[in-house]
Amino acid sequence: MTTQHKTNSASWKNKFREKLIEIIGKDGVIHSEDELLAYDCDALTGYRIKPIFVVLPTNAKQISEVIRECYNENIPFVPRGAGTGLSGGALPTDEGIVISLSKMNKILDVDIPNQRVVVEPGVVNLWVTNAVSPYGYYYAPDPSSQIVCTIGGNVAENSGGVHCLKYGVTTNHVLGVEMVMPDGEIIEIGGKALDYPGYDLTGLVVGSEGLLGIVTKVTLKIIKKPEAVKTLFASYDNVEDAGASVSGITARGVIPAGMEIMDSFCIKSVEETIGAGYPIDAGAILLVELDGPLAEVEAQLPIVEEVLKENNAIQIKIAKNAKERDLLWKGRKSAFPAMGRISSDYYVQDGVIPRSKLAEVLGEIGELSKKYGLRVANVFHAGDGNLHPLVLYDASKKGDLDKTLELAGEILKVCVDKGGSITGEHGVGHDKKRFLSLMFSDNDLDAMNLIRCAFDNKGLCNPGKLFPTPRTCVEPGMKKFEEHPVQKAGMGEMY
Amino acid sequence: MTTQHKTNSASWKNKFREKLIEIIGKDGVIHSEDELLAYDCDALTGYRIKPIFVVLPTNAKQISEVIRECYNENIPFVPRGAGTGLSGGALPTDEGIVISLSKMNKILDVDIPNQRVVVEPGVVNLWVTNAVSPYGYYYAPDPSSQIVCTIGGNVAENSGGVHCLKYGVTTNHVLGVEMVMPDGEIIEIGGKALDYPGYDLTGLVVGSEGLLGIVTKVTLKIIKKPEAVKTLFASYDNVEDAGASVSGITARGVIPAGMEIMDSFCIKSVEETIGAGYPIDAGAILLVELDGPLAEVEAQLPIVEEVLKENNAIQIKIAKNAKERDLLWKGRKSAFPAMGRISSDYYVQDGVIPRSKLAEVLGEIGELSKKYGLRVANVFHAGDGNLHPLVLYDASKKGDLDKTLELAGEILKVCVDKGGSITGEHGVGHDKKRFLSLMFSDNDLDAMNLIRCAFDNKGLCNPGKLFPTPRTCVEPGMKKFEEHPVQKAGMGEMY
Repeated sequence: MTTQHKTNSASWKNKFREKLIEIIGKDGVIHSEDELLAYDCDALTGYRIKPIFVVLPTNAKQISEVIRECYNENIPFVPRGAGTGLSGGALPTDEGIVISLSKMNKILDVDIPNQRVVVEPGVVNLWVTNAVSPYGYYYAPDPSSQIVCTIGGNVAENSGGVHCLKYGVTTNHVLGVEMVMPDGEIIEIGGKALDYPGYDLTGLVVGSEGLLGIVTKVTLKIIKKPEAVKTLFASYDNVEDAGASVSGITARGVIPAGMEIMDSFCIKSVEETIGAGYPIDAGAILLVELDGPLAEVEAQLPIVEEVLKENNAIQIKIAKNAKERDLLWKGRKSAFPAMGRISSDYYVQDGVIPRSKLAEVLGEIGELSKKYGLRVANVFHAGDGNLHPLVLYDASKKGDLDKTLELAGEILKVCVDKGGSITGEHGVGHDKKRFLSLMFSDNDLDAMNLIRCAFDNKGLCNPGKLFPTPRTCVEPGMKKFEEHPVQKAGMGEMY
Repeated sequence: MTTQHKTNSASWKNKFREKLIEIIGKDGVIHSEDELLAYDCDALTGYRIKPIFVVLPTNAKQISEVIRECYNENIPFVPRGAGTGLSGGALPTDEGIVISLSKMNKILDVDIPNQRVVVEPGVVNLWVTNAVSPYGYYYAPDPSSQIVCTIGGNVAENSGGVHCLKYGVTTNHVLGVEMVMPDGEIIEIGGKALDYPGYDLTGLVVGSEGLLGIVTKVTLKIIKKPEAVKTLFASYDNVEDAGASVSGITARGVIPAGMEIMDSFCIKSVEETIGAGYPIDAGAILLVELDGPLAEVEAQLPIVEEVLKENNAIQIKIAKNAKERDLLWKGRKSAFPAMGRISSDYYVQDGVIPRSKLAEVLGEIGELSKKYGLRVANVFHAGDGNLHPLVLYDASKKGDLDKTLELAGEILKVCVDKGGSITGEHGVGHDKKRFLSLMFSDNDLDAMNLIRCAFDNKGLCNPGKLFPTPRTCVEPGMKKFEEHPVQKAGMGEMY
């Protein structure tokens, strides 16, 4: 395969580097082996691949020119935000470059009367809220990593957060993007208006995991900060009762901003680590956050309390002030790091189930945990049915990781069997592509590949992600696909 | 062009008809000239084209087989719902067939615990609400035609309604579709879960105006009926004050379910026609509907009243009961039919502007009305900035229609100049494709065409719609397009 030879040739590499420097300048092209190491994975650290170069463009035109070079030279390119992704969506290929958007971090327009903000992709999620907060607004999608993760990455993964039950995920808040296509052309789709004519390309790009091009500008919707926020905490003997409370609350017509459940294992770890005041012997706890006009929140509070009691809540606490609320949330937010204290390694799974199957699925996860002899802690966005089982393992123990991945995969199969999905918010990326055929027939996947080929006929844009089988685009529309050498070469090894 | 010859040949037509009958049965194939007349246009009646046949399939498999025949024979096909569309999206081509979804009208699954309903495309919008109403739920998108229009058409046009300010348009309520692709393959995308991995094909299909395939099953989200509804009415001296009230209400953090403005011309016609109790000499009226938990609505009501007063409302009425509410709405809902009483003909325009530009744009529309010597009545979804100027003309007067279309086009240009859009909810269809390049560069349109070509490389699926210039798909991914004979042939004549 010529591509392989080429990227191994020092003279070709030098020449290619010179071209990149011509476009972006010397400071914008990283080539030293040491520095490249910082880009060899995202937050899914099980896979590491060093790219040939990393470029740090400052505008769309530079990206367009870089991509045209890549297109001409058949060099794959991988866009990268803050690298906080959990599915390996920003994993490089060893024969390609990484395009880091970290220098494109300007807020371009704050339009309060129309409730819109236009940003570059490298803007950190929380910066948007910070920029509009003085006017009483905020940007709703709030992934746990929001103090670090960037809007570009949020767009790629269609990120959620603890408040997406009421406010929706990223796609509900992105109205338009400017994007460099995989052949270097710059397009602008959507904008400040609510709905645009023609195909909803903006909606297609959000959640496309960086496979359709590189987003260089994003128009976001901001919303008014709620007048009041109330956080309730309830403990239970078992997860079933917590789950029934969640269903009970929505059945009463109350849509909280968020509803989070943690199981006993999770509670213990959190309490031992940070002491959030959760009862250490509880079978499950539930956090419910109501927000909106004060009158609404005050009217909903007794309804929620009633439902919690009906479903055998043992202890019910209502945060009296911001400090108490922060403490209740602190436990939930520490769930992942707390695992690090009781286990050397853990794997975060991300699956979705219909809300009505909560108890059933948790039972099956318990069985699987026993079968594999691995501990599983459960924490989840209960309102959305979005589970985050944490499988604890010991990487130094031979075979433990393999068992973990197998168990985590079994959990996804359970989710799909119940009518759910293999990912709620972390994306497919490199990590989950092998599960995609659980949910989609060959016809369904062919339809997706048609889109990819339409945008990226050479398969150079973030290859090796999303699709279970590498496919080329020999005859788009004809659905005859061959194995794709570039994608195959970019699969990477686990270590 | 062979296609033209073929469809004019009686023997070919007979043979093709036999094939269709084989698939669908005799009752499912309409061929008599009289009956075909019923399918020669949708609610945009300025264009009429008789198709060669109309088929009435009852399931996806039949559609798949019909489309495979069309694909093999290069025969265009146009999907059709209830024919209530206002942009000519269901306009037939004279060398193709119409696929009517009217017999696929079953509600397949009502899943209350998970708040999902699965329907066939021919199900009438209001039937969904009727089916779930006993459980306290409803289907939110409510186009004015909701007692007639069907979910399949709503999906094609991404329909809105008076309540989409708070609840979003169709795309926010469709979670999955089954679709027959333009080559006959059946795919299933999305489903009951909130977010699916891979490209958001469901989002792409919603609003694609029937160009990407024929939707045969739709999974909808239903929501809990609000506990309380309050409707406010305010009259003003001028439209500026009404517009300022709308901005004022949202700036106070209140998101009403809907906010509708009518101008003086509209008010007069409505009053003379149905007598809704609007003050006939008002410069503008505003309807504000609040809904949600009783406590919330009660808390918002005085805020809204205050804003109305601050912005010089002359008369403020609050509907005391359902009867009074219905009367207030009756005027708004009669706005279009009322025009028929004062003008033999009228053309409904559909444009979007940033909310902050309301007064400015209405001023410019007034100037254009004077310039063209044609009366324009304005009624609009003010919360969304979605205008519906009604241009009154006399079809029997030579040149009047041409002037009308020119004026209506000028209005769209104003909308786009102010950062808006050429359509809010009626779609591009046949009628507005000439304006698409006001909003999109060639690169942007090429990107859309790439999608079309990926799905429909022969350009047979609802041709002559959406795209300003007919394009073929000679080399998808290469962006070299030629004029497309089938699409060109299907453009139709106005009469």
